[in-house]
Amino acid sequence: MKKQRARDLGIPFEGTTGEFNAITDVKGVTVGYSTIIEGTDARTGVTIIHPHGADDFTPAFAGIHAFNGNGEMTGAAWVEEGGFLEGPVGITNTHSIGAVHQAIIKWQAEHHKMLQHWSCPLVAETADAWLNDMNGFFVKEQHVMSALNSAKSGFIEEGNVGGGTGMLCYEFKGGTGTSSRKLPEKFGGWTVGVLAQCNFGRRFQLTIAGVPVGNYLKSDAPVTSGENPFRQEMGSLIVIVATDAPLLPHQLKRVAKRVTLGMGRTGALGGNGSGDIFLAFSTANHEAAKAQGMAQIEALPNSQLDPIFGATVYATEEAIINALVAAEDMVGHEITAKAMPHEELREVMRRYGRLG
Amino acid sequence: MKKQRARDLGIPFEGTTGEFNAITDVKGVTVGYSTIIEGTDARTGVTIIHPHGADDFTPAFAGIHAFNGNGEMTGAAWVEEGGFLEGPVGITNTHSIGAVHQAIIKWQAEHHKMLQHWSCPLVAETADAWLNDMNGFFVKEQHVMSALNSAKSGFIEEGNVGGGTGMLCYEFKGGTGTSSRKLPEKFGGWTVGVLAQCNFGRRFQLTIAGVPVGNYLKSDAPVTSGENPFRQEMGSLIVIVATDAPLLPHQLKRVAKRVTLGMGRTGALGGNGSGDIFLAFSTANHEAAKAQGMAQIEALPNSQLDPIFGATVYATEEAIINALVAAEDMVGHEITAKAMPHEELREVMRRYGRLG
Amino acid sequence: MKKQRARDLGIPFEGTTGEFNAITDVKGVTVGYSTIIEGTDARTGVTIIHPHGADDFTPAFAGIHAFNGNGEMTGAAWVEEGGFLEGPVGITNTHSIGAVHQAIIKWQAEHHKMLQHWSCPLVAETADAWLNDMNGFFVKEQHVMSALNSAKSGFIEEGNVGGGTGMLCYEFKGGTGTSSRKLPEKFGGWTVGVLAQCNFGRRFQLTIAGVPVGNYLKSDAPVTSGENPFRQEMGSLIVIVATDAPLLPHQLKRVAKRVTLGMGRTGALGGNGSGDIFLAFSTANHEAAKAQGMAQIEALPNSQLDPIFGATVYATEEAIINALVAAEDMVGHEITAKAMPHEELREVMRRYGRLG
Amino acid sequence: MKKQRARDLGIPFEGTTGEFNAITDVKGVTVGYSTIIEGTDARTGVTIIHPHGADDFTPAFAGIHAFNGNGEMTGAAWVEEGGFLEGPVGITNTHSIGAVHQAIIKWQAEHHKMLQHWSCPLVAETADAWLNDMNGFFVKEQHVMSALNSAKSGFIEEGNVGGGTGMLCYEFKGGTGTSSRKLPEKFGGWTVGVLAQCNFGRRFQLTIAGVPVGNYLKSDAPVTSGENPFRQEMGSLIVIVATDAPLLPHQLKRVAKRVTLGMGRTGALGGNGSGDIFLAFSTANHEAAKAQGMAQIEALPNSQLDPIFGATVYATEEAIINALVAAEDMVGHEITAKAMPHEELREVMRRYGRLG
Repeated sequence: MKKQRARDLGIPFEGTTGEFNAITDVKGVTVGYSTIIEGTDARTGVTIIHPHGADDFTPAFAGIHAFNGNGEMTGAAWVEEGGFLEGPVGITNTHSIGAVHQAIIKWQAEHHKMLQHWSCPLVAETADAWLNDMNGFFVKEQHVMSALNSAKSGFIEEGNVGGGTGMLCYEFKGGTGTSSRKLPEKFGGWTVGVLAQCNFGRRFQLTIAGVPVGNYLKSDAPVTSGENPFRQEMGSLIVIVATDAPLLPHQLKRVAKRVTLGMGRTGALGGNGSGDIFLAFSTANHEAAKAQGMAQIEALPNSQLDPIFGATVYATEEAIINALVAAEDMVGHEITAKAMPHEELREVMRRYGRLG
Repeated sequence: MKKQRARDLGIPFEGTTGEFNAITDVKGVTVGYSTIIEGTDARTGVTIIHPHGADDFTPAFAGIHAFNGNGEMTGAAWVEEGGFLEGPVGITNTHSIGAVHQAIIKWQAEHHKMLQHWSCPLVAETADAWLNDMNGFFVKEQHVMSALNSAKSGFIEEGNVGGGTGMLCYEFKGGTGTSSRKLPEKFGGWTVGVLAQCNFGRRFQLTIAGVPVGNYLKSDAPVTSGENPFRQEMGSLIVIVATDAPLLPHQLKRVAKRVTLGMGRTGALGGNGSGDIFLAFSTANHEAAKAQGMAQIEALPNSQLDPIFGATVYATEEAIINALVAAEDMVGHEITAKAMPHEELREVMRRYGRLG
Repeated sequence: MKKQRARDLGIPFEGTTGEFNAITDVKGVTVGYSTIIEGTDARTGVTIIHPHGADDFTPAFAGIHAFNGNGEMTGAAWVEEGGFLEGPVGITNTHSIGAVHQAIIKWQAEHHKMLQHWSCPLVAETADAWLNDMNGFFVKEQHVMSALNSAKSGFIEEGNVGGGTGMLCYEFKGGTGTSSRKLPEKFGGWTVGVLAQCNFGRRFQLTIAGVPVGNYLKSDAPVTSGENPFRQEMGSLIVIVATDAPLLPHQLKRVAKRVTLGMGRTGALGGNGSGDIFLAFSTANHEAAKAQGMAQIEALPNSQLDPIFGATVYATEEAIINALVAAEDMVGHEITAKAMPHEELREVMRRYGRLG
Repeated sequence: MKKQRARDLGIPFEGTTGEFNAITDVKGVTVGYSTIIEGTDARTGVTIIHPHGADDFTPAFAGIHAFNGNGEMTGAAWVEEGGFLEGPVGITNTHSIGAVHQAIIKWQAEHHKMLQHWSCPLVAETADAWLNDMNGFFVKEQHVMSALNSAKSGFIEEGNVGGGTGMLCYEFKGGTGTSSRKLPEKFGGWTVGVLAQCNFGRRFQLTIAGVPVGNYLKSDAPVTSGENPFRQEMGSLIVIVATDAPLLPHQLKRVAKRVTLGMGRTGALGGNGSGDIFLAFSTANHEAAKAQGMAQIEALPNSQLDPIFGATVYATEEAIINALVAAEDMVGHEITAKAMPHEELREVMRRYGRLG
């Protein structure tokens, strides 16, 4: 049985989704997970996103925005400078950056997928220090290889999977969420897909479709064996935006900035402790990226970006709520985290006239 | 009779305001306006903010964030590089940047208020091209001098005043709004004040306290004599944040970034045509800024910034809604703009259980 | 009689120049000056650069780098965000930013050359506070119009002309300089042109073709009537780079960054008081910039940028030295500034085996 | 016998060095190396810099500038956002980023030196792909631990050591170099120390003390078994600047930018393939960084930064030349690299009157 998603609960969102309401609605994009749940302390994993699938290592135009850089996205310097994402994206826990970084390089070297004589992979993280023992370094090379090799298009899992396995969000169990928007043909018919690793937010902030649900869903905040991780914001939000719209690097940076607004629609205040770093890439201009001489590029004029900006905001908002809806209770390293209660949520939404 | 403000209508907001619910709640900050409404085509003005009042030209630590740089904030380069705001802030219409820039320099020269041998004033803008003939260049030196010299603390006007006189927001009459937050003593007791010149947004986006009011308040979009200015986003949002919290320049840049979330809470999607540029400054460390030798500075640790970030988000949201609530119908250069209807709004808010 | 230029003195530089060794070697680029020398206190002016000449207002891809933002370049926010330079560039003295800003808008409005409903012109400055009374505001609308309308291709003046009229450089009389490089066909045959308004540097730093000439040419530092302006760095360097190479905005930002290295080759240390802000634009992709639907763009791969980077560095270096060589003694507002002595310079160069 | 350094050869530099002419002249800073030279293919290592020595994990104010971000410096996002360097700096080869990243976290966890619940270490790289088989992943945890634990103050090695072991610079054998400047008391008496991992530059560009030595020292460019790595720029320059001057984060970013000028003085043109990323940190304000409540901070006014900027430029230039002078011939993975010939260099310097 497929898990419920936010729309299944009747939560209203703006815009029209793609077929799978997932980042994989952008043609070519594939997603792989390794989920590690072992013993009492290992609750983590790795998520891989291939811009053009595992077999096509053509660079993709990309742009990055660090709304709050209390976190890591390796490879960011070259995206900023050169305008290209040159390989798969990895997302994991904070202390497994190194393992994922090295494993991606090995995979690229073995498959002759390295563009230059070297590779600076893009690996991002959020901290699962409370459900997972990050100093156990549970993410191993084989987990990364598995995620790299098993990535697929179409339907992808949400919640306690991949890099999002051990995450917390708005003091509920968090994790991985995804969503997409398909623009009307009059706006170009482009698809915008989002994948979010959600590990941020205080309960009182949680807002869904404009309803201040955090004021009502107060029970079941994580029980810690020691210090409360939620004295202040201590999470992070990593968002990857894919689109088939032909955008230039500086335009993709603008798209990445719009993720901020989608995050904000769920009530976030951008706490100091949260590493909120966003990447946007375009699968278009595939031939151009391989140019040896002059690249022939298509690009949308700035005046046509508004629908793409809007789609990014809406898909980000929904991906985050999808992560919360899909996540399930988890007992881990130091705490027990409860999933957001679906029926209780619906009751609050109904009270505010916002249940679809 | 004082105009109504958003809270007077029963719209709920988070947090506790300062005495005047205005940027002037930050001690020392003064605001001056010149409002120009003449003939059929002049609907504009200038707003001045003195960080320490007109008589004290001590530089203030400051930081800037351009969420969408389709606009102008002169003086930004030195704030970014040197960390100081060295004089008054001016906000006007797009084509009056030059007039305000030169007038501020004259005022500084005459009052011996120039810190270096030169001055690069901070002047920002939004475009009132539809209610005002921007090529009429109606803002003259005397208007700027008047605003510089009449700036005051305490209660300040909102709506069709100062630089905000001829602005549109969410396809209603927009303008100038302000708000503040006073933090509890346990969070330091700091005050955060915001002044917003609001000229952005499409009607369908408008969200107030989480309610999608733009879906209901559909009538009275501006009637243009020619081209509809609202085919796409074509406004701008300038926000100035003041605080007495002792923050360093890189921390104030972080505060300026949080304005994005406050803007987002009103439904904005960050359209291409909108120049959304934000400045934050601190009135603290007054003696340090004058240091000839070593400066002695106080600063909050990063771990104590969350309440200030939150206050910035909340006060930005409320300042924008205050601008909409205070603005009044205006007939101008090319269009007639209607104010947001208070009773109709209250009705929608009530329907969603969000009327206080 | 044409003035001597650096190469005429036998100073060696790297690379091959274009026909005029000027920014106007980039086809379409025109430059206009208004030079204001009146009475004892007016020593200033304005320089205008039209990317495609005065009659063609097609936006040009552009990028900006502020190496040291103690200065002003209005319009920078939109270049950074949107990637386009949408009109002429103005360069003047610090306190005439406003006059030039407004005059360019008027000129655009009168000639229907405004792209959007508003214009945020790009105006940069350096401070001529010692030779010119900046608070005299001598730059008037007619001066700007004259420079806008008289701009031409081919040979352009250097030294005490246009915005550079009253500038100081390395404690010699400074001003306006230009240079260009034409790449070999195997590197694409592109042209890179530079125009520099030079107002920076301490005498001891001055290095020409690697020779520490500042250690030898010690006489004739400006005599001030009051305070020595050279206790510390107090100038600025504005550099405009034009190229016909088809580069994207993020690549042009990289070109702008390379100006730093060219400035460095003349000995500069990047003092706090210097506003060193650089713009690079491309005249290519002319049709693309006008696209209403999809833009068809050509762009060089990153792997082919090195020759353009090198040309930028070399042309910047030579433009600065050209400004010093062309400048002539000037008596002004507060000081008398001496030009760099040509024969004395040649003698030092000869001593170090660096005279061509 | 100690290796010769650039000054020992009679090469003139500006300014006065500290006692060891090394980054360790900044009190508290310690440097550790692991050098890996095994078999035919392992020519690499790791360099560690502790801001306050291995036993004191107090964060240090820091700033970063990526002049050309074709490379990696993990941890950069938090330095940019939070203003602090929270642990040791590692420098290694490109493909060993992951190993060093994980090892530093382990070391921090074992020694309870982690400031937050997580760590995002700062690890930078340059590519030794020609002398070292980067896909051999020769840097292991024990090498990093050894460098972390053996770091020391005082004299430190240069040339083929640590992360710089297998590097190339200006087509000579490159590697690790260091230098420092001690300012006169009238400028505050501050010390600025630089450590550079040098792996950049084409031979024809090489300039030493202003002399175009690259035009003369033409022999012995690396012999490759396959493709010539020097068709274009394909290196990188990582520079770490330490100072005891009390500077704020935004001021340290300005210091980091000045490294560009020091690099430029050695002839570099900033090629596309070079990852030129610079970090500057201050050891001052030690108590403030530990503040739980309000931090009491000292900072230099901007007007006193020029001597520190100059010291940074000069020490960077000398550190790079020191790396070249100290490096020794190396036979490795794919090529043989020759050291810069000292006597031949001296001969060229003498010809240009630049031998001290």
